[in-house]
Amino acid sequence: VRGKLILDVSVSLDGYSAGPDDDVERLHDWLYGLTAWRQRHDRTGGQSNRDAELVEEAWQSTGAIVMGRRTFDSGEEPWGDDPPFRVPCFVLTHRTRAALRKGETTFTFVTDGIESALEQARAAASDKHVGVMGANAAQQYLRAGLLDEIQLHIVPVLLGGGIRLFDQLGDEPIELERTGVIDSPRVTHLRFRVAK
Amino acid sequence: VRGKLILDVSVSLDGYSAGPDDDVERLHDWLYGLTAWRQRHDRTGGQSNRDAELVEEAWQSTGAIVMGRRTFDSGEEPWGDDPPFRVPCFVLTHRTRAALRKGETTFTFVTDGIESALEQARAAASDKHVGVMGANAAQQYLRAGLLDEIQLHIVPVLLGGGIRLFDQLGDEPIELERTGVIDSPRVTHLRFRVAK
Repeated sequence: VRGKLILDVSVSLDGYSAGPDDDVERLHDWLYGLTAWRQRHDRTGGQSNRDAELVEEAWQSTGAIVMGRRTFDSGEEPWGDDPPFRVPCFVLTHRTRAALRKGETTFTFVTDGIESALEQARAAASDKHVGVMGANAAQQYLRAGLLDEIQLHIVPVLLGGGIRLFDQLGDEPIELERTGVIDSPRVTHLRFRVAK
Repeated sequence: VRGKLILDVSVSLDGYSAGPDDDVERLHDWLYGLTAWRQRHDRTGGQSNRDAELVEEAWQSTGAIVMGRRTFDSGEEPWGDDPPFRVPCFVLTHRTRAALRKGETTFTFVTDGIESALEQARAAASDKHVGVMGANAAQQYLRAGLLDEIQLHIVPVLLGGGIRLFDQLGDEPIELERTGVIDSPRVTHLRFRVAK
């Protein structure tokens, strides 16, 4: 079984995956109270609801992650010594750099392109899925026809600025199939399969 | 009872309310087969499903429409001699122009601003709601804090270009409350109240 490449991301109703100055507080605040999120950040308590189940399912089914360099750079400090991913991560970059281990998470820097990073991530994930993090990386995989699924957590806010999740995709429409809708009070979860 | 100002619009997953060259075919194709849409366009037959009910409800509850000049200009020809609105329409413009009647629809050109257009539309709508058409007009009413509700019909496609529905909103976040989700095979209907 080849693992799927999945984009799983919170987004404002106006399409930003981060606000001005890379701020994601408003977009992620539905996560902070959840048991699943708190356990990964070594905190106790929290709510066990449908949102938490969804987050837990995503983490359990993800065996590796590919991310853009900007995502890594802006995350490295806040993630601290024990990043919550706990799977092999592959960072798309142009500069060679030795691999890093932080807690249970490893970061491998890949300079020979998105296909190579995906191939390495798939090998590391064995039969689990590969997650993609960062708007720019997601766009590259979408344009290349390599993204399999999109799981959006739509947050009911218009941010007015920031990083647009779906941008620079080219003029050719990309058809999707909506495969799931889960409604919860603070966020709407929509899942899509990318038509190939 | 003061009617609400409601934005009811189809949008691609990447946030375009029209594709390149103002093309809305792909975004509206979920509508063309519905009884509700066909009746308004003097055609028979079609499907009576949840989508059709939603469209019918929206038309029945709308007593007047405000729209941008670009929306009017690009619509005037395709709408023909009997536009489907059949309520008083108020067009935001900078140029004075005599009112038009086409079939059961009237168009009044308003040159003294969005508040004036809304006031005239509310008076014409009596206890029904006022609809807003066009991305630019919607943005103006949102920025001014005058929009009450947003009904999005999210079409599972990434268009990659066109007219962005939510753009130029300024840097101040606008909080929404998600009040309804209706899932149907070809389109996902999400409804929001704008927090004031």
